[in-house]
Amino acid sequence: MTAPSKPKVAIIGCGLIGQAWAIVFAKAGHTVALYDAEKGVAAEAVNAIKRQVDALARHGLVDAEHRTTIVEAIATADDLSAALAEAIYVQENGPERVDVKAALTAEIDALVPDGVPIGSSTSGIPASAYAANVAGRQRCLVVHPINPPHLIPAVEVVPTPFTHASATHAVMDLMAQVGQVPILLQREVTGFVVNRLQGALLAEAFRLVGSGVASAGDVDAAIRDGLGLRWALMGPFETIHLNAPQGIAQYVERYGPMYRAEFASDEPLDDWAAIVENEIGAVMLGKHPLPAIAGAQKVRDTKLMALRRHLDQADDD
Amino acid sequence: MTAPSKPKVAIIGCGLIGQAWAIVFAKAGHTVALYDAEKGVAAEAVNAIKRQVDALARHGLVDAEHRTTIVEAIATADDLSAALAEAIYVQENGPERVDVKAALTAEIDALVPDGVPIGSSTSGIPASAYAANVAGRQRCLVVHPINPPHLIPAVEVVPTPFTHASATHAVMDLMAQVGQVPILLQREVTGFVVNRLQGALLAEAFRLVGSGVASAGDVDAAIRDGLGLRWALMGPFETIHLNAPQGIAQYVERYGPMYRAEFASDEPLDDWAAIVENEIGAVMLGKHPLPAIAGAQKVRDTKLMALRRHLDQADDD
Repeated sequence: MTAPSKPKVAIIGCGLIGQAWAIVFAKAGHTVALYDAEKGVAAEAVNAIKRQVDALARHGLVDAEHRTTIVEAIATADDLSAALAEAIYVQENGPERVDVKAALTAEIDALVPDGVPIGSSTSGIPASAYAANVAGRQRCLVVHPINPPHLIPAVEVVPTPFTHASATHAVMDLMAQVGQVPILLQREVTGFVVNRLQGALLAEAFRLVGSGVASAGDVDAAIRDGLGLRWALMGPFETIHLNAPQGIAQYVERYGPMYRAEFASDEPLDDWAAIVENEIGAVMLGKHPLPAIAGAQKVRDTKLMALRRHLDQADDD
Repeated sequence: MTAPSKPKVAIIGCGLIGQAWAIVFAKAGHTVALYDAEKGVAAEAVNAIKRQVDALARHGLVDAEHRTTIVEAIATADDLSAALAEAIYVQENGPERVDVKAALTAEIDALVPDGVPIGSSTSGIPASAYAANVAGRQRCLVVHPINPPHLIPAVEVVPTPFTHASATHAVMDLMAQVGQVPILLQREVTGFVVNRLQGALLAEAFRLVGSGVASAGDVDAAIRDGLGLRWALMGPFETIHLNAPQGIAQYVERYGPMYRAEFASDEPLDDWAAIVENEIGAVMLGKHPLPAIAGAQKVRDTKLMALRRHLDQADDD
């Protein structure tokens, strides 16, 4: 499984994100080619990657033999064409500028055969903004990691209206196969999903501090020593599904009015009960049917104990 | 340190929250008296607490000797008066009804000497709503745990306008001393701080699913396998302070426009840059001065590796 026998992936742009992507693909057994338009950057990236992989080995995330395989699977390419030759997937990590991404994507597109998806790590630019005039635009899409992707598995897959479903599916499959957790966006929205969720939390955090309700340190503690411990184990919907004996529908019935009152001065909240009934309820009940909730709560608390112990020990280091 | 030599704490109301509070205080060396108005509930709570403490021992959070000390420090009281005698602090965990809390708090207030704070575990009722007519209302306040408090240390301390500062300070000190992380609210707001932060995230999560941008499972994954991993290690402000080479002010300058665009259709966002300049910036720079950011990023990534390994191993169990 760890021999670099899987097809080549091309990493274009070798800053911190490109380096982390190289580790993700090489760790899963792919050959990886590195290319950066700026001279010397790819070679320096190889050194930085070695240090990263050593750190992973020290923390028991890869073993000694695997460490060698990963490092040997990654090589620099002399030019863009060599980097892309025979690649089954291209991960572009260029500068966050529409004009630069448009030119770079067109260049890549001209060099790789049809059917090879071109994913961009951009955190904010939808592919429709830079790829609309690219000849092979139907295989262009955003593949946005949460930094650093070799440690944080969630990755946002954001196709444009002109991206072919086959390209999107190929990327979803590849991401799952290399151990990431791909999140599919049904359409391009500003901030994608992850930064919309982060932005909503930040907006309230800034509001609480700015209006004098709590200090910055206390708001940070409310997450780090509070909600963050739950959310490292399960998402927000699963969390509330397990916080009422009759699941998420009951939770929304019980606490919906409190949440509604919190935001009375803002835009009215959506009808949470309707969204649960139409969609989220079935997903949550599929995961934890009502008779299984008590058992799932026990599993959660056991995981919480183990997490608590892990964090306590880490603090002692 | 673990001998039950510290003064008595009274736990009034012995459901799951009361049980967890008993463990918190007994674990820190306090004697704990349990009382519940419903006959038999306190005795049953003692059994449940024993099972909980056994689970903590199995997960290495208490050792065998400490386990015995904790269990021996907790006893039921025959009536409210006996439970409160000589208590230095009262944690009330009654039903979430204003009339019930008002009557129970008045009853407690008549039995304990001046200066003993009476904290309520309520997740949604401000103390001014139930304690305004209590004779000793100046020592009444909300002390809201994140469930369960023996595993999640954040606790919200919410004084009313009529709560004396001495009572608030005594509770803040006691909470820190028993190993909780007290969060002080400068005034009563609906949902307090924790549920306002959770509510903001939930509102966006429901909006994303309800408007068809992403599935419920993918939104959960964006937190569990993404942001939640960061937030179990540090709060939202510290997270963004370490996500730009020049700290939080630079982060807000770079990404503020993106966040502003996300919520263009809602109420306008506060001026984040001004709040950073007035308040949050100094706190973050006190924690991580600009020259220390690169080092703090390395510490963060090391902790993230250890957390990743912990969660991977937990999944294998």
